[in-house]
Amino acid sequence: MELLDAIATTRAIRRYRPEDISPQDLASMFFAATRAPSGSNRQPLRFVVLRKGVHAVAAKAVLGNAFRAGWAAKVDADGYQNGSGQTSDSPKTRMRNTMQHFVDQFEQTPVVVLACLQRYRAPTPGEGGSVYPAVQNLLLAARSLGYGGVITMWHEPVEEQLKSLLGIPSEVTISAVIPLGRPVGSHGPVRRRPLAEMVFEDEWGSPAPWANDPDGVAFTQAGPPRPHPPQS
Amino acid sequence: MELLDAIATTRAIRRYRPEDISPQDLASMFFAATRAPSGSNRQPLRFVVLRKGVHAVAAKAVLGNAFRAGWAAKVDADGYQNGSGQTSDSPKTRMRNTMQHFVDQFEQTPVVVLACLQRYRAPTPGEGGSVYPAVQNLLLAARSLGYGGVITMWHEPVEEQLKSLLGIPSEVTISAVIPLGRPVGSHGPVRRRPLAEMVFEDEWGSPAPWANDPDGVAFTQAGPPRPHPPQS
Repeated sequence: MELLDAIATTRAIRRYRPEDISPQDLASMFFAATRAPSGSNRQPLRFVVLRKGVHAVAAKAVLGNAFRAGWAAKVDADGYQNGSGQTSDSPKTRMRNTMQHFVDQFEQTPVVVLACLQRYRAPTPGEGGSVYPAVQNLLLAARSLGYGGVITMWHEPVEEQLKSLLGIPSEVTISAVIPLGRPVGSHGPVRRRPLAEMVFEDEWGSPAPWANDPDGVAFTQAGPPRPHPPQS
Repeated sequence: MELLDAIATTRAIRRYRPEDISPQDLASMFFAATRAPSGSNRQPLRFVVLRKGVHAVAAKAVLGNAFRAGWAAKVDADGYQNGSGQTSDSPKTRMRNTMQHFVDQFEQTPVVVLACLQRYRAPTPGEGGSVYPAVQNLLLAARSLGYGGVITMWHEPVEEQLKSLLGIPSEVTISAVIPLGRPVGSHGPVRRRPLAEMVFEDEWGSPAPWANDPDGVAFTQAGPPRPHPPQS
């Protein structure tokens, strides 16, 4: 697949067909992931791949419960039941249905990847510079091979339980959990804010004159729905 | 460019030809960068692009000094002058020469990108999940268009000075600085640890039977040189 096309169409995929990912494709995806850079090329990232093994089944169950709890909290916090969330065909309702299906079916996800950082110093906000480039490579490679996934963080409340279950050493943190599988439905162009809102030149807030979206691009609002939407 | 080929050959590029990056190519690169995912699709990332403007020149000078100081500290800490660092053609010496050239010429870097995170909560180790996927997209897109760059963190000691110079709001952090330009020399396959060391299945430390590198792949040691190398 052409690189820029792959990047422009790698969406978060949360509904998976039941089929497995072939070992050859897994090898290609993790070869791609591990080509990413890391600070001083330390390569402190490790992947634990959960498929159908005995530990995988147990860990997926722990994660499924955590994801359902995480999503339930978010429904309340972000007001997914309010406003247009009461209309059956609104974007908010469609997102709520997709997310509910995602967490309800979590245990059936064909492959769940734990992106683990072997820390060599105290946690910092910048340590993700040695983790998330590889995770993005993984998602792009998955896209190019006909799979899809999403970066999630709902494992955090059960991180210690997972580490104990999977024998993950104490100095290692689970930086992200990435479910993967063959998508139900299709990939397609991702929507983002207009480029002019996100790219400045020479100083903060100063529009870059060249920062124009390609013709015909559709945009999206940023972020989750507002908890208290303004009356319209 | 084909995606998996691009991923496998996107190396850290630290030597740049003097030519500029065209506005069309910049637009393509930042369109690619901003397609990356972010937590709840909040899209909290902003890019400040430094080229030849008045603030850019001043900011590159501040960064150049910080990078030279950062590199000087690393030469000492990681023993770049010791052991094989005393031999003119060793990998350690070649890396030291490349790095010294990189920091000495920093002000001449055609384009310097500040990846800025507009925080909406206290800093966390996971916040990079909304930053570094976009940075990786940027580097991959640059690669496919004939440019190259590298993720750096040596701005940290001068972050407040930079923010003041460029009008960056207090709640925004600079998560990385990415110099970009047309490479002197060529791209080529990146070398990493063997896949078997980095990918486990079902539990920590358990090799994934399918995690094999492609035939003919060359490997590398991980990390910087050891400060006190064993006698050989």
